[in-house]
Amino acid sequence: MSRVLIIGAGGVGNVVVKKCAQHPEVFTELWVASRTVSKCEAIAAEVDKLYGVKVQTAAVDADSVPELVALLNKVKPVLVINVALPYQDLTIMDACLECGINYLDTANYEPEDTAHFEYSWQWAYQDRFKEKGLMAVLGCGFDPGVTNIFCAWAQKHLYSSIETIDILDCNAGDHGHPFATNFNPEINIREVTQVVRHWQDGEWIETPPIMSDECVHFTFDYPVAGPRESYLLYHEEMESLVKHINGLKRIRFWMTFGQPYLTHLKVLENVGMTRIDEVEFEGQKIVPIRFLKALLPDPGSLGSNYTGKAVIGCVFKGEKDGKELHKYIYNVCDHAECYKEVQAQAVSYTTGVPAMIGAMMMLKGIWKGEGVFNVEQLDPDVFMDELNKNGLPWQVVDFEGKLPE
Amino acid sequence: MSRVLIIGAGGVGNVVVKKCAQHPEVFTELWVASRTVSKCEAIAAEVDKLYGVKVQTAAVDADSVPELVALLNKVKPVLVINVALPYQDLTIMDACLECGINYLDTANYEPEDTAHFEYSWQWAYQDRFKEKGLMAVLGCGFDPGVTNIFCAWAQKHLYSSIETIDILDCNAGDHGHPFATNFNPEINIREVTQVVRHWQDGEWIETPPIMSDECVHFTFDYPVAGPRESYLLYHEEMESLVKHINGLKRIRFWMTFGQPYLTHLKVLENVGMTRIDEVEFEGQKIVPIRFLKALLPDPGSLGSNYTGKAVIGCVFKGEKDGKELHKYIYNVCDHAECYKEVQAQAVSYTTGVPAMIGAMMMLKGIWKGEGVFNVEQLDPDVFMDELNKNGLPWQVVDFEGKLPE
Repeated sequence: MSRVLIIGAGGVGNVVVKKCAQHPEVFTELWVASRTVSKCEAIAAEVDKLYGVKVQTAAVDADSVPELVALLNKVKPVLVINVALPYQDLTIMDACLECGINYLDTANYEPEDTAHFEYSWQWAYQDRFKEKGLMAVLGCGFDPGVTNIFCAWAQKHLYSSIETIDILDCNAGDHGHPFATNFNPEINIREVTQVVRHWQDGEWIETPPIMSDECVHFTFDYPVAGPRESYLLYHEEMESLVKHINGLKRIRFWMTFGQPYLTHLKVLENVGMTRIDEVEFEGQKIVPIRFLKALLPDPGSLGSNYTGKAVIGCVFKGEKDGKELHKYIYNVCDHAECYKEVQAQAVSYTTGVPAMIGAMMMLKGIWKGEGVFNVEQLDPDVFMDELNKNGLPWQVVDFEGKLPE
Repeated sequence: MSRVLIIGAGGVGNVVVKKCAQHPEVFTELWVASRTVSKCEAIAAEVDKLYGVKVQTAAVDADSVPELVALLNKVKPVLVINVALPYQDLTIMDACLECGINYLDTANYEPEDTAHFEYSWQWAYQDRFKEKGLMAVLGCGFDPGVTNIFCAWAQKHLYSSIETIDILDCNAGDHGHPFATNFNPEINIREVTQVVRHWQDGEWIETPPIMSDECVHFTFDYPVAGPRESYLLYHEEMESLVKHINGLKRIRFWMTFGQPYLTHLKVLENVGMTRIDEVEFEGQKIVPIRFLKALLPDPGSLGSNYTGKAVIGCVFKGEKDGKELHKYIYNVCDHAECYKEVQAQAVSYTTGVPAMIGAMMMLKGIWKGEGVFNVEQLDPDVFMDELNKNGLPWQVVDFEGKLPE
């Protein structure tokens, strides 16, 4: 019997619960918990209607280790899938350790008061998970997650050595709002306003943030979506990939942004609405970016009118049997089709499906180990097959385009 | 003895107090009061240093009639100059009526919860001021204020009948911030986001607001400042001018905006930051535009680095002795010179100086009457002379440019 507890009932939580419910032979009992239990109940009602699967629900404040421990001791799952806020990764890991439960998440921990995406906090749990004989799988969404697995698969099957990786993330969708973020605005805006870094010849190179006139960008011709302006951005999977892909000389991450999105972001930064520190207002302390989040459309609500494609993949340059080889592995995901299947847009879908597959790998014992793992450290083969079977088909092609030097 | 109480210690309050202090023979005793008494004390300290004039200070909540009445009974001024928030016009008028004190303001009343600029609320005080033998002078800043007086003066001296008036307000200044408003952001943003109206052939014509792609604008070649894109806007002085300028067929108001200002405004509106209703946030009720105000630069702080000119005036078309006549009366005001004189930018300066002159007209008995008056109902001649003597020199020229039909 495999009882799994999903923590988080936002856009991604909705996808994870529904995709797990599609595999009742693997996920024999499902729980979903979040601060707002009504959101869990709404998902459970839909799952019952769609698949005839009963999902149990609970309220939990994921900032509180004692509350989490009480819930874990009550539910006794074999695995926690954490799709709550990245601020809450450590409290949930602490509770899993205390209760002897395996762990999987989709985004690395960051502290609330600094925009600082780093694995160091979670890697520091390595010995504790090892000692308890537990497995923690970090960053098992799309990027990080599937992009790391594309790298692991390319290293295993295509290359004798990989020299450069360019991860390219294109959302060519249209949600019909003048400005909205595809996932939690607070996390999204922190991510895209930070100083950009990429890795080259053993060190991190800093370049200006994407709202700066001096930022690095170029036009990439995406499959299906066509040519799109793509901006150099720091993204967390690079931090683990530089450790785990042998011989790597350079890794970069690119994301597409439309000019209106950048204009909105720049204005919001100019007026101070992206600030993450507290501002005195009418005798209260308010964090501007949180108030902005309260005004913006709920990312979970974007799905119903979302059209267009998300195209995410990796371009590799490397060598096989003494020959230079350029390959591109990618997935194309359609917003409207995602909504039809699980009432979510593609950004939630591409994050939630890999979390379900990662959990399936753990429950089936295909992924096993003691300690803390990034997904590229685990065998990619079955995971890659499951992507094709669960709505995220991928392709591998010869890459004939051009990337900036 | 002429004891005057100024209520409001923002950018305009600072100018009014200093300009009054330059005429100790007229303003023999000065008081300044505001919610935050430290702002009054800072102005008083500067006035002492600049002019050796002692200004007395007090704290008052101008939303509270009892607090205002207590202050007026203590200070016993002959006149209150109200440069507080437009929401507070009625409470201050109520207190003046109760205590038998004359009244002058620079901006008409608007309720807090709807963006609605109209004189009707204040005109409704006509009988009460008359019965008490008191005088209330409304809208004695630059626009409304000086622009109305330009109209009265043109009617008295230049024209037998005025057919059209175009008021043109150009701020060609640069304050060095990506986005800031020249006066209270809450009032400023309400004003510029409202539906546009102008008056033609006896009725108000509505056109789209300035952030709309369909808004009405044209390029006007301003004296000194040069050609600037000017947008049709509703402005409060039109409401009284259509009543008081005989035979008027059309009146319009135009204001210059730069593209970056409009872009910022559009984004802030898109994300909901210009909303004036309450939003639930972390268990509190927050009015977004107020929170935005807390983030933006204090308009009073813009002066020190402000450069460039403000150019405001009226273009008239009409007839004198059977001949068609086109005249333009305007003032050019330099931001940096204003700052040098009274540590304020030109927008505060052009509002504060006319308030002082209007008060001077009342104290000298040049403007007298019982009831509520708009400034174009009073004799313009001495006021026009005082503008030249007090830092706002004006010119009248033949107008040879072109205006939209």
